[in-house]
This record gives sequence, structure tokens and C-alpha cells, in this order.
Amino acid sequence: MRFVDLIEKKADGMPLSTQEIKEMINGYVANEIPDYQMSAMAMAILQRGMNDRESADLTMAMMNSGDIADLSDLPGVKVDKHSTGGVGDTTTLAVAPLVAACGGTVAKMSGRGLGHTGGTLDKLEAIPGTKVEIGLEEFKKIVLANGVSVIGQSGNLVPADKKLYALRDVTATVRSIPLIASSIMSKKLAAGADAIVLDVKSGNGAFMRTDAEARELATLMVRIGKRLGRRVSAIVTDMSQPLGNAIGNALEVKEAVELLSGLIPESDPLYKVCLLLGSHMLCMSNIAKDAEEAHAMLEKAVKDGSGLARLQKMISLQSGDSSFLCMERIDELIHVKKTIDIPVQREGYIYSIDARKIGIAAQMLGAGRERKGDPIDYSVGLVMKARRGAFMHIGAPICRMYVNDERNLEEARNLIYQAVQLKDEQPQETPIVHFTITDMDI
Amino acid sequence: MRFVDLIEKKADGMPLSTQEIKEMINGYVANEIPDYQMSAMAMAILQRGMNDRESADLTMAMMNSGDIADLSDLPGVKVDKHSTGGVGDTTTLAVAPLVAACGGTVAKMSGRGLGHTGGTLDKLEAIPGTKVEIGLEEFKKIVLANGVSVIGQSGNLVPADKKLYALRDVTATVRSIPLIASSIMSKKLAAGADAIVLDVKSGNGAFMRTDAEARELATLMVRIGKRLGRRVSAIVTDMSQPLGNAIGNALEVKEAVELLSGLIPESDPLYKVCLLLGSHMLCMSNIAKDAEEAHAMLEKAVKDGSGLARLQKMISLQSGDSSFLCMERIDELIHVKKTIDIPVQREGYIYSIDARKIGIAAQMLGAGRERKGDPIDYSVGLVMKARRGAFMHIGAPICRMYVNDERNLEEARNLIYQAVQLKDEQPQETPIVHFTITDMDI
Repeated sequence: MRFVDLIEKKADGMPLSTQEIKEMINGYVANEIPDYQMSAMAMAILQRGMNDRESADLTMAMMNSGDIADLSDLPGVKVDKHSTGGVGDTTTLAVAPLVAACGGTVAKMSGRGLGHTGGTLDKLEAIPGTKVEIGLEEFKKIVLANGVSVIGQSGNLVPADKKLYALRDVTATVRSIPLIASSIMSKKLAAGADAIVLDVKSGNGAFMRTDAEARELATLMVRIGKRLGRRVSAIVTDMSQPLGNAIGNALEVKEAVELLSGLIPESDPLYKVCLLLGSHMLCMSNIAKDAEEAHAMLEKAVKDGSGLARLQKMISLQSGDSSFLCMERIDELIHVKKTIDIPVQREGYIYSIDARKIGIAAQMLGAGRERKGDPIDYSVGLVMKARRGAFMHIGAPICRMYVNDERNLEEARNLIYQAVQLKDEQPQETPIVHFTITDMDI
Repeated sequence: MRFVDLIEKKADGMPLSTQEIKEMINGYVANEIPDYQMSAMAMAILQRGMNDRESADLTMAMMNSGDIADLSDLPGVKVDKHSTGGVGDTTTLAVAPLVAACGGTVAKMSGRGLGHTGGTLDKLEAIPGTKVEIGLEEFKKIVLANGVSVIGQSGNLVPADKKLYALRDVTATVRSIPLIASSIMSKKLAAGADAIVLDVKSGNGAFMRTDAEARELATLMVRIGKRLGRRVSAIVTDMSQPLGNAIGNALEVKEAVELLSGLIPESDPLYKVCLLLGSHMLCMSNIAKDAEEAHAMLEKAVKDGSGLARLQKMISLQSGDSSFLCMERIDELIHVKKTIDIPVQREGYIYSIDARKIGIAAQMLGAGRERKGDPIDYSVGLVMKARRGAFMHIGAPICRMYVNDERNLEEARNLIYQAVQLKDEQPQETPIVHFTITDMDI
């Protein structure tokens, strides 16, 4: 087989065989297939698509390209969650401890933030002393003791994805749904998950701009899971404004602690998404028999503080100072020179908030990275003061900026003004959860 | 401008601007744009196409990527012909001298054979002593003295095409019609042509397998010419069997000499195509007022031997031994150990001849190259003994093989058998010229 013939096959819109996909991934990781051929293939896949069988084969081939974490000696169903990348999305820090408090096993490998989206590892590192680079055996010990641990990738997981993603990033082939789905699913499977709940974001701040795209991605990932014998369900949630109010690392830790302290109302979008994700995780783990029971268990874990206790213990076990993780001390994580409120410049209803622009504004203040490896300032960021649909008088603050480095201040402020649109009429309300796709639906 | 944004633009099906195309080609030639990005762009172009304006811009940008031959000090219209690559196509060796004999100016840069198609330079080098690597000034002197010269590329013409073609070849992006059209047209324009007649081959031995594809390519090239102020017309001719009977370098020189000696009947496909190409060339050069007059002039140049005299003089001026170029001595160019006739194995009408397979069979005997730079044997090849539609008794020869190296003999023989299909019913006759596209048609 010459790889150029495989490119031609896909360029003509034909499916690749299981064997061909395996040889493609192995050849690429072994540097036998050069980047210039792989990028042409990626563009052909973007243009012509892949069927479910090809997508599952690609996931499998990528998963098998490196180490696979063996979590089989941990008890119960190892359940994971994954978000496709949002703004103000601190769900992992809240859901993972809650699920553990209810008896679930959450051995989670997470990532860092890039561009306008945050990453759980950075948020954890905002808590002094916390280690996220932990070996597999140590990681499993923590999970065994506490039901939950969140670390960075342990070992050489899915090297095919690292290489392919870097190539896709510079060849305008990131947006391919089969490539996105196999990238996400291969990493989740290689990290040892038995069951996975996906939070697919839909809207202006997300990679999937429309519900149609989000549905396609969610459905494909659930189908891949089914083909590979894993339980997968997906909820498609709104990203037409930031999910939580906090955008920034320590600020988001604070919001998670607030949630775990019972200070966030049930009507709050972040709370709703956390409890829905947690419900799916508990049901898939065979801990709750249905959503109602799961919901009640999670509510209890919020109210009795057992969720917060799991988060505190997890941080302690990962060498962090968990004494900051209470409402009395949490503000000590946030060291800024100044805070600046951004007032609206006209009266009216908040008609739309471009979550992507808000995410980039926070990044400009130092909360995020433009490039892998850039330093970040854990303390800075934004806290939204109003959501879509709210009526604003002139001068009322739309958000508060937490600032240390003032270099990009003006640019960030302008971006916030660009992101927030005010109108005389009230916008239609959009539900926070757009729809759910489980393996029963497909 | 980041090039990844341009790839995305094309991947989304949007046209690139003139400036963007220029920066793309300049950046690629300057090694600022890496192969892995350019191959993704080429695949996006293959999938999404380019409009006429983009194709003309691409042609222009490629043409300007290197030297441009200045032929302006030669008198009259510099007229060129180009074939998209056929089997048994020795037209240049016949038409170019005939047009010169009628008063035309043919300063032609030609190429070498690759794969199943032959190249004029190799055929010229089959004549002892003939030089094809000649500097521009010397070349122009020969054209001034003789009206015709055919040489290899002089100077660094269209380096963008060399680089891009090599990349397309290994990334399954050769078949893009805008990329083919701009590749051909940029080279013809950089070689200094005022007017160009294109012979676009259509059929199983050609790159364009169907008339629809051939029409698309022909139309696009005529449109590019019009946009760039050059006269271009295209004839689409049959390549569902070899054009002439000879396939091989010296064998094709012999067939050209036969034609120029008046020994090939007017009904012969090679003769028809030569006279049609020549007619267009004379009309575009403003030497003949219409096709009828042009045809009569060319016929006269065949009959009075003035065409053959131009070919002989051209070879002499290019240091070759022109004394071989007459029917008395032409066979001395063909040195083979043996000739082998290939008999048909059943009775019936020749229903089809796969010209591509015939071309590859000749290549296997040593007449062509698999890779650039491979050595070739000028003497070997095939001479077809029957054409489509002919009735064959068992044992009648379909062709004669001219053989020196017997290593691939069996494989070549098998390929010939595969190429020739016999049936009880007579096939429908296909005309040699399918249709013509001139700048009046578009």
C-alpha cells in the first residue's frame, strides 16, 4: 500500500478500511508517513467525512498508538467526564468530588487551557502546592482513598493525537467532526474510562457554533463509544454566554467552592449543568437507578458538605494546601492589584454575550495562554455581573476585571464591550441544556 | 495574513484574492510556507475548486515565480502547441516543422516523457548528436534561421510548478483541474508564447478520462489565456487508443518522417490531428485567413517536402545528424535485438485498446521512464498493427514489439493482451477530434 493511494481513496469520498486506518496512524507516529501527506489526508477527511465505523477504527488506532492506563484494579465503574471546551466552565472541580462523595470512582486525566478556554489543571495549580504530574500508581492510590483524583496525562498516552492535533492546528483541519470525535474519545479511552459523560458545548463561545454541529459531534462520540464497548452519553449545553460567572483560574476555584458550599442557587446554569453531568455519571456507574435518585444524592452531597470534603482531601493528597478551600479563606487565592468594574454604556436588555470574546478578554489579562507553555497569572480574570436577558441601567456593571498586568487592559475592555450586545427588547430565553444523547438514542 | 487562514478560506469553498494567491506562491517558493500546509491547500483546491479569476491569478503567480523567456525580438506571432500527454503522439515533430514551412514562428520548449506518456525531448535525442539543452540566445538564432526549434526548458522557468507538482504527485492532488490548467498555462506563458494551441486528450490513455472532464480543462485553459491576453484554442482529441501507430522514441521519429514524406494517408488519425493543430497555429499566427486556407498550406508543405526540410535543418542546427531523417536511412536509428509480433488469441473485432496500458508496456520494454532521470532505450517500443474496429483472424498481429532487454518482456506482453479487447460485434466508431474550443466559444 502506498499512502498516496489512501489519500486518493478518501479524496474520492470512499471509506478507508480498518487495516488502512491502522497503518495510517502507525505509519504517521513512526514518521514513515510525512506531515505533507498526512495534512492532505486530514483535509480530505474534513471535506469528505468518515462513517461511524471509520471513526471508531480511527479512535481505536489512536488509542493504541501509545500507553493505555490500566485502572482495572480500582473498584467499580471508572467514570469520566469531558467538556469540548467552554468559557467559565468550572464543572470538573465541582462534579468530580460530588460524584465521589456519592460513591463514584473518578480517576480523571485532564488538560490545560489554550486560547479562550480554560483547563482544569491550571485551576488546580491555582491552589498553592497542588501537584498534577503524578505517576499512575500514586494516582490510583489517591483515587482508592478518596474516590477522586484529577491529574495531568500520566505516561505516553495517545502520541498519535499529539502529533496529529499539532498538524491539524496549522492546516485548517481542526474542524473535522470525525477528527475531533476520535481525538477526544481516544484520549478518554486511553485514560482508562469505562463510562464517559460528554458535555458538548454549542454556541458562539464553543467550537460547535450550532446545535446541528453539536448534535453531529455528540452522536458520533456516543456511537464510537458503543462500537468500542464503552458507555457514553452526551449533553449538549449552551455556550452562547459563559457557563459560570467566573472566568480565570483562582476565580473559578472560588466559584466551585461556592457551589460545593451550597451557595449557588439551583436555578444557576453552572449548578444545573453540574448536577446533570453528575446524574449521568452516577447512573452509568450503576450507583443511582435513575436521574431523580442521582439528583437527590448529588444535592445531598452539596448540602452536607461531603462534596467539598472530597475536593479538600483530593488537594491534600496531591500535596496542595486545602485550607484555602472554604469560603472563609478562598479569597486569599486571588492576589490582584486592582479590580475594575465595566459599566454598560446604554440602557437595555443584555441581548447576547459572545463567550469566545469574553474568554479571550480574560486570556489577555493573563488568565490564559495564547501558545502552549505561555505563563499564566492564576489570580486574574473576569467575573460576570449579569447574564443574558437582564435589564441594565446605564452604568450598571456587566463584569468585574481582576487585574495585575495592565498592558492589555484597554484591549480586553474593548473586547468585553464588543462581546456584550444591549437591545431595547428582551431576548428569547435559551435553555442551558439543549438536548441529551445517550446510547439508547442512537 | 496567516497561511492557515487562507487554507481555511479555501476549505470553506471561498475564493482566494489575487493578492492572497500571489503571496501563497511566493511564500511557497521562498520556503516560507511549508509543504504540509501547501498540501492541505492543494487538497482543499481539489475538493472546492477555483473560479476562472483565481485560476488565471494562480497561472500568473506561477509564471512570475521564475525566469520568463523574452522572445519579443523574434518576428511574428510566437505560436506554441501543447498536448496534455498521450500515447503514440508524435505530433510536435511533424506539426512544428510544417508550421515553420508555412511561415510560422515555432520557438518551443518541450519536456521529457514520464510514466506511460512520451516526451518530445527524448524523441529528438533519439537522433544522434541532437542537443536540446541550448541557451536562449542560441535558441532564438535557430528559430530566426529556420522558423522552428524545439529545446528543453531554458533557464529557471516556473520553479513554483516544479515544487508544487512534486508535492501534488505524492498527495493525490494531481487531478485538480485548476491546478492542471495553471501548471500547463504558466509554463507555456513563461516560455514566451503569444498564441497556444492545446491538444487535450480524452479517453482511457489520458489524464482526462471523459469528455466532460476534458471540456472543463480545455475551457478553463482557453479562459485563462483570454484573461491574460493570449490567444488560446483547444482541440479535444481521442485517446481511447494510441494516436499514431508507433510508441517509442526512434519509432515515433520514423513515423513523423513518414508523415512529412507524404506517406501517411489523410484519413490517418495522426495526420488529421497534426493538420488540425497546424491549422489553428497558422490561423492564430495570422498567416492563414481560415482553416481551409491553412489546411491547404500544410498539405502543400507535406507534399513538397518543405516540412521535412525544416525538421532536418532544425536537427542540423541543434548539432544532430539530420542525414538519418529520410526514408532511406531512418531505420538505422532503430537498433534492436529482435522484433516480436503479438498475435490476437481469438477472432473478432478490436473493441477497445487501453492506450495507457499500451504506453506502460512500451515503458517496460525500456522506451520510457518510471522515475525522472531513469535511462531509456531510444530504439525499443511498439508499433501497432491494427486499430479499433478492425476485424482480426486468430493469430493476426495486434502489434510488433521492438526489444533489446528481455527482462520485462512477459509482463509487457501480458499488459498488451490486457489492453486489447476483442468482441464479436463491431464497436461504435469514435471520431478522432471530439470537439474544439476557441476563445470565441467562451
